[in-house]
Amino acid sequence: MIVELVSTGSELLLGDTVNTNVSWLAQELNKLGYTIAYQSTIGDNRGRMAEIFRRAAERADIVISTGGLGPTQGDITREVLASAMGREVEFNSLAMTEVQKFFKRVNREVPTAASRREAILPVGAGVLRNPVGVAPGVTLEVEDTTFILLPGPPGEMKGMFTDSVVPYLQERFGSQGVVKSYRYGIYGIREIDLEDRLMDLVKEQSNPTIAFLIKKGYIELRITAKANTAEEAEALLRPWDEIIRNRLGTHVGRSLDIPMEDLLGKNLTVANATISTAESCTSGLVGKTITNTSGSSAYYMGGVISYSNDIKHRVLGVPQELLDTYGAVSEQVARAMAEGVARVTGTDYAVSTTGIAGPGGGSEEKPVGLVWFGVTGPHGTVAHKANFIGSREEIRQGAAELALYYVYTYMKEKGTV
Amino acid sequence: MIVELVSTGSELLLGDTVNTNVSWLAQELNKLGYTIAYQSTIGDNRGRMAEIFRRAAERADIVISTGGLGPTQGDITREVLASAMGREVEFNSLAMTEVQKFFKRVNREVPTAASRREAILPVGAGVLRNPVGVAPGVTLEVEDTTFILLPGPPGEMKGMFTDSVVPYLQERFGSQGVVKSYRYGIYGIREIDLEDRLMDLVKEQSNPTIAFLIKKGYIELRITAKANTAEEAEALLRPWDEIIRNRLGTHVGRSLDIPMEDLLGKNLTVANATISTAESCTSGLVGKTITNTSGSSAYYMGGVISYSNDIKHRVLGVPQELLDTYGAVSEQVARAMAEGVARVTGTDYAVSTTGIAGPGGGSEEKPVGLVWFGVTGPHGTVAHKANFIGSREEIRQGAAELALYYVYTYMKEKGTV
Repeated sequence: MIVELVSTGSELLLGDTVNTNVSWLAQELNKLGYTIAYQSTIGDNRGRMAEIFRRAAERADIVISTGGLGPTQGDITREVLASAMGREVEFNSLAMTEVQKFFKRVNREVPTAASRREAILPVGAGVLRNPVGVAPGVTLEVEDTTFILLPGPPGEMKGMFTDSVVPYLQERFGSQGVVKSYRYGIYGIREIDLEDRLMDLVKEQSNPTIAFLIKKGYIELRITAKANTAEEAEALLRPWDEIIRNRLGTHVGRSLDIPMEDLLGKNLTVANATISTAESCTSGLVGKTITNTSGSSAYYMGGVISYSNDIKHRVLGVPQELLDTYGAVSEQVARAMAEGVARVTGTDYAVSTTGIAGPGGGSEEKPVGLVWFGVTGPHGTVAHKANFIGSREEIRQGAAELALYYVYTYMKEKGTV
Repeated sequence: MIVELVSTGSELLLGDTVNTNVSWLAQELNKLGYTIAYQSTIGDNRGRMAEIFRRAAERADIVISTGGLGPTQGDITREVLASAMGREVEFNSLAMTEVQKFFKRVNREVPTAASRREAILPVGAGVLRNPVGVAPGVTLEVEDTTFILLPGPPGEMKGMFTDSVVPYLQERFGSQGVVKSYRYGIYGIREIDLEDRLMDLVKEQSNPTIAFLIKKGYIELRITAKANTAEEAEALLRPWDEIIRNRLGTHVGRSLDIPMEDLLGKNLTVANATISTAESCTSGLVGKTITNTSGSSAYYMGGVISYSNDIKHRVLGVPQELLDTYGAVSEQVARAMAEGVARVTGTDYAVSTTGIAGPGGGSEEKPVGLVWFGVTGPHGTVAHKANFIGSREEIRQGAAELALYYVYTYMKEKGTV
């Protein structure tokens, strides 16, 4: 079953709005076993919109559009679909009832003229209830293709999809089977080397499929199988899971079911332990990331952003001699920063970062992207080194992720959790 | 001149990745006077990708794709474009030189077999330098259509676009007329009230147009005019500029030509002054944001993340009495935090944040979204209060922006710069 997503709205082609509807819809549809083959965006332009609808009818079984269902003159999706498919439009009393219901819900008069537009649908259209806003959604079957028109505002679109489109698809097309994925966080290996080790899987993939996604500080490896039942899907995934774990060993780092900061937070909570941060190149991003988790004040006490060497020395107590001998970006200073902030804050654990985020400041021995990490805790202090490739932002995001990951592995390896 | 954007990558159709490349490219191209008519996304599928390239060649003058230029078997954009346009591929020594230069820059061996893939280009292709990563970009002219292939990772794509594509378009297509925008950072007023004050402009807009974009901590107001020359565009914008400034007064906060952190960095550099941060609810995000600006180590010394009250008291010297009497989220504590971190770090300026980022922890007098800011400097200490609406992340992002903005206005009002 081939699905095509169509996004309408000039704001998307002006770049004022990032199209988050597509990724949300894609995730939901994939979970239901549907495959998205194409996604197109056009502005509020009759000719181009009609062209895209006609093309989509040729190549897709289901076409889902978002946008252009409001009451203004610019909201043309309903009429363009009708004319592109050679249908007339007509006043749809079911749609009008939905519009009236909305205004009743919010205790307002129905603004007749404009809202009437929202009930002028292609002949033969079905109506989908809008649980959040005014404009009803539209379904239309034309030969082999089913069109589903949804509103553009994400809240309305999501509500309508969940409440009405999912049951509609189930009734119209039945179950599309089960899609199951295993996701792995892969650490400390480059994409190209990772692919090398799994080249046979990459080459023979069809069901399961295998994918590598570059994330901050790690690679997400995913295998996905499609089958009639969950058991069958699992049976397809299990041999691949074994191969992956055997070949990658400790590179398989952590479950990706929850963000790194939530996972670490859970482990700190279980261990009844506290943590603090000493940051140079990430300059607060590690502290910010830990506190993405609400309730993190139970284990995160705070930290020191020691951007200058003076603060590393005076506030964290990093010996001047270490800074002079090894430089701020060094294993020795990373260790001393972590130990220093644990002392200052009195926490059980502490993690530090010191590196070269670029674009300037790199040298032959210490290139842009080099970051040293220190982790200290009940079982002493360890250090790690990483070399990131990317922009200043990407290097810092990657370093923040790895800082948390190294605390996580410290706790796991030392048996603290 | 019709532009079509093509995004490739199965992760986009699985919903794993939100496509931010499209909005960024659309903004940049619109600024240059180009109109985006279509945007399409397809997976790493030869047949569909070829179909989209052929279709794009029919309807667009310029086709810009992102993704699929890496060294793996899944990176097929180069070869699919060639075959869709009936071209052979060949080893391109210019591209190989770029690949080799990258590995030289990062001091690594060139991984020959895989990297060679990145230099196999359609016959007749041009090469665009990748300022961040390995894969060079590709240009190809086929009859009336110019194809430009860019890498998918946003950092690489943006760097290549700015460094190479902009000059390429200028040389190949000349000026596309002038699109000029004035952008205003509007602080301390709600969108609905802002629109009310400018309703006449909203209603009569055509050239210039007016737009409101909700940003972190402020609203971006933008007026845009298109004309043959810069002077003509300016002449269209000037009367609107006057109306906006008259009606909004001090709500017009700062130029948006550069990010807040760069603007503040410039002013600190001019004033030859240093700054530090004391953060509670933002927990490092202010320090991280200041150091988005490369070279910020010249004026940013560091700071303290005083997430717990204990650290506010012990490290920053906030009197326990203030914490007990007024609570951590209070004007008094915000002031004491800023003064404390300036003392600890010895900087000329300091800024603090303390607030309730939610979702829990709010009360009637201190609801979720309440944030207090302290700013201290050569002219004493001031405090500001803001009430944010949104998610935990949105509240913290808004608070970080406002923290920098309040230092900026402090320096401006006190005549420090």
